[in-house]
Amino acid sequence: MARQKLRIIPLGGLGEIGKNMMAIEYANDIIIIDVGLMFPKEDMLGVDLVIPDITYLLERRQKLRGIVITHGHEDHIGALPYILPQLDLPVYATKLTQGLISVKLKEHRYSEKANLRTIQSGVKFSLGNFKIEPFSVCHSIPDAVGLVIYTPIGIVVHSGDFKIDYTPVDGKATELAKLAQLGTQGVMLLLADSTYAELPGYTPSESVVGQTLERIIAEAPGRVIITTFASLISRIQQVIDAAAKHQRHVFVIGRSMRDTVRMASELGYLNAPSDVLCRFDELHRFPHNQVVLLTTGSQGEPTSALVRIANRDSSQVRITPGDTVIMSATPVPGNEALVNRTIDNLFRQGAQVIYERLAQVHVHGHGSQEELKLLLNLVKPKFFIPIHGEYRHLSLHARLAKTMGIPESNIFLMENGNILELGPDKGKITDKLPSGNVYVDGLVMGNLASVILRDRKLLSRDGIVVVIIAIDKRRGKIIGRPDIVSRGFVDTQEGENILEQGRALVATTLDRSGGRPLEWSFINTKVKDTLSKFFYEQTRRRPMILTTTVEV
Amino acid sequence: MARQKLRIIPLGGLGEIGKNMMAIEYANDIIIIDVGLMFPKEDMLGVDLVIPDITYLLERRQKLRGIVITHGHEDHIGALPYILPQLDLPVYATKLTQGLISVKLKEHRYSEKANLRTIQSGVKFSLGNFKIEPFSVCHSIPDAVGLVIYTPIGIVVHSGDFKIDYTPVDGKATELAKLAQLGTQGVMLLLADSTYAELPGYTPSESVVGQTLERIIAEAPGRVIITTFASLISRIQQVIDAAAKHQRHVFVIGRSMRDTVRMASELGYLNAPSDVLCRFDELHRFPHNQVVLLTTGSQGEPTSALVRIANRDSSQVRITPGDTVIMSATPVPGNEALVNRTIDNLFRQGAQVIYERLAQVHVHGHGSQEELKLLLNLVKPKFFIPIHGEYRHLSLHARLAKTMGIPESNIFLMENGNILELGPDKGKITDKLPSGNVYVDGLVMGNLASVILRDRKLLSRDGIVVVIIAIDKRRGKIIGRPDIVSRGFVDTQEGENILEQGRALVATTLDRSGGRPLEWSFINTKVKDTLSKFFYEQTRRRPMILTTTVEV
Repeated sequence: MARQKLRIIPLGGLGEIGKNMMAIEYANDIIIIDVGLMFPKEDMLGVDLVIPDITYLLERRQKLRGIVITHGHEDHIGALPYILPQLDLPVYATKLTQGLISVKLKEHRYSEKANLRTIQSGVKFSLGNFKIEPFSVCHSIPDAVGLVIYTPIGIVVHSGDFKIDYTPVDGKATELAKLAQLGTQGVMLLLADSTYAELPGYTPSESVVGQTLERIIAEAPGRVIITTFASLISRIQQVIDAAAKHQRHVFVIGRSMRDTVRMASELGYLNAPSDVLCRFDELHRFPHNQVVLLTTGSQGEPTSALVRIANRDSSQVRITPGDTVIMSATPVPGNEALVNRTIDNLFRQGAQVIYERLAQVHVHGHGSQEELKLLLNLVKPKFFIPIHGEYRHLSLHARLAKTMGIPESNIFLMENGNILELGPDKGKITDKLPSGNVYVDGLVMGNLASVILRDRKLLSRDGIVVVIIAIDKRRGKIIGRPDIVSRGFVDTQEGENILEQGRALVATTLDRSGGRPLEWSFINTKVKDTLSKFFYEQTRRRPMILTTTVEV
Repeated sequence: MARQKLRIIPLGGLGEIGKNMMAIEYANDIIIIDVGLMFPKEDMLGVDLVIPDITYLLERRQKLRGIVITHGHEDHIGALPYILPQLDLPVYATKLTQGLISVKLKEHRYSEKANLRTIQSGVKFSLGNFKIEPFSVCHSIPDAVGLVIYTPIGIVVHSGDFKIDYTPVDGKATELAKLAQLGTQGVMLLLADSTYAELPGYTPSESVVGQTLERIIAEAPGRVIITTFASLISRIQQVIDAAAKHQRHVFVIGRSMRDTVRMASELGYLNAPSDVLCRFDELHRFPHNQVVLLTTGSQGEPTSALVRIANRDSSQVRITPGDTVIMSATPVPGNEALVNRTIDNLFRQGAQVIYERLAQVHVHGHGSQEELKLLLNLVKPKFFIPIHGEYRHLSLHARLAKTMGIPESNIFLMENGNILELGPDKGKITDKLPSGNVYVDGLVMGNLASVILRDRKLLSRDGIVVVIIAIDKRRGKIIGRPDIVSRGFVDTQEGENILEQGRALVATTLDRSGGRPLEWSFINTKVKDTLSKFFYEQTRRRPMILTTTVEV
């Protein structure tokens, strides 16, 4: 009997940044790698979250063996609370990742039902026909792993999100020797992180940031206020270390930051001596030059501690000249304006603000081109799929692989929903699943009708005008004058006049129909056309016009 | 008699990027420098443009002497069509800038009424008590100038937008010798561009880009498609030169690019030999490796030629493998997503795409920190005002000036609407004008009520629900069942049920009021509260709720 083919099905993260999820299928087994979410893009008005479409998996329930998570970032674990209740599978993750998943599931009141299993680097486990061996990788969160997946037709290596840092804060470097050994043994397929495939050279080590932070803390005349991602535990460790070295005390502001610090300390991922890490109510005991404040708000989130401080809206901290603020994070695409406004406001309060453009107070967690080449060189895969990235990142990573000697026919430039059927000697993209995104909007989860998004977009542009026409239902005739209300279209001054004229216009238009009984479609079209034209002439705006009749 | 003070009044561009405008007042004379516009920020939903508030000037009409423009970019000339009809002043600009202003005024049918006067570097002219001498500066558009303003109490230098490029494409370097001479003579006040005060070092010369473009064009196997800003005339010249050197022909696609090329050629700012620059209908005559296409679309504008090409939506050009696309521009903040989508789609069509992150195919037009220091060093001003930039840029530039030896009390960190009163020995910010922005939204120009913007934001998030209640006006009682319509809130499937339940709920709520006559405010509050709570429970969305009664 001919051997079956391996199916690689990316359900998220390919052709976009975020909501990473991939299914690997062989015969009667499917395993799932990562279950992430994505924050909505600009044109997804009012959408809260975007998660992967799992129709393909729901149709093959009996084949599903388990979910393996590479690390604890939102774009890898964030959709679990939405998808786990539908799939009810065991979730395999390292200790810290499991801690972060637990926190998340608890928020959604699903934690007791979840079946979480701990994995660790170098310890194999089986899921159906697959044998899986995690290996340590460096990333901007501790306890991140890549996966070696032993399949019946060959070895698959999945990089997870990774960079190569020889001096990581937690001491766990990416396991290059293991990868080299696998490369010698023969790897059929490599799936590798493409997020920073645009950048030449190497991504700097976390230790560079440690040195910068230490220098700034040493030289600061007053308080140092540092903001970073709550999940960037290694950065928090660096801040604690630098503070300790310069006889400063660290105070944590913001719930999510406090929760992470507590959890990571309990699990042993953060070493925070109690004389360095102090309770906030002790803050007044220390002079400014013995204080470091660690806070959320690195993305300029309007309700975060840092933004409230920047807006003089915090009861806890007020900026005084002499304060130094360090933004130890990059704005996530889309947050630039919020972050810049926060920086501007901190400068206005008299703080010295240090951010990525001014000093190396942040490095990112993904490998640049030289690291990607090193991985390709060590693993020497027969086939290659660039994963995690928008299309240009995948394209550039594919081109890099080609320059490293992998034949073009063995490189698969895939996007979400593509299905690759891979045999030992060749592969082919055979299918395209219909959908990619499931929108979470309030409690609703689904293919949020594009008509809703279109309506919201229209509404946001020029507002809405509602025309209400009362009709005598026995005689089919209009009663009184039509009414008009609007929102987001004109302000009260200019509006009164224009809306009043619109009202008169509707009345005239409807009068012209004479004594004939009124047809709804006639009213609707006629009123919309007339008003739309009138409003555009008067204001050059095109509000949405909603006509409704009340029959009495 | 004591000498009067100079008043410096920034009306735009300080504390923000864009809509640059400044008034300088002495005794009975006011001059205006630049009249720019700004594109709306994310939270200005539906606004088309933002222009400066000129109330201060309108109240002092008899003092106004003229408008001086430093260069032809939108953020320096764009508000002229809106403001010139209100002020009716002569506009002084260099030849190319004047050409660009004419094109703009013609679009707004105001060109015949405008009084445009040509100025040039080194030629002084008088406006009331002020004598003005333009000097050449390098920027990302030719014919840019800074201004030396001789006032009765001292010399003021306004840098315009500038960088220091020793090898500019048009050969006109920033006039350092003139600035040094002024510095020796004694400059009272320097106003200098802060846009790139964050960046250490020097901004690279335009010639670096020329070399990169030439190398790419020389090596490209097929067509080269280049996009840049239509106003970046020096870049267009570089493309024409590189194409000519490698025996390629240049074809221009897109109306605004064609208009600029024609105007700049006529005025002598672009040297485009007719055998290099060809008519588009000759394109088919040449093999791909003899073709360069120059096109608009560098900002991912949805209707631009390049975006249509990227979306396979152009009848003129279809991408084939072998094509090289060069994005010779930076995304203006806010356009990143559109630009990235365009790049992704070009990769999808099989093009090789080269953009700023991959090669130096663009340099910006503003000076970095070393250039700002050089200017300060040469001009040696007594007083300094950082202009053109968000607050952090102004702050960093102010700090730079302090490190150069200007006393902190002589540096004025101003924002739009501040008024600085400056004497020969000291200055003071004495006032703050109430407003900064005038929104242009359709035909309306004004202080677009914040309530409109807030409404549009609410509408864009979760849509709108309109409740219509018919009331018998004689008896003050409800007739029939209330009606509910919605847009952008729920889709038709889920919606029908929820809206029907909402309708029933409103009916019940109103019934409880018993036989009492109904008060409008009671209905409004009661219905809104009840529905808002119900919809949130059901959907976790908070649509805007608009209650309206029809009396019959």
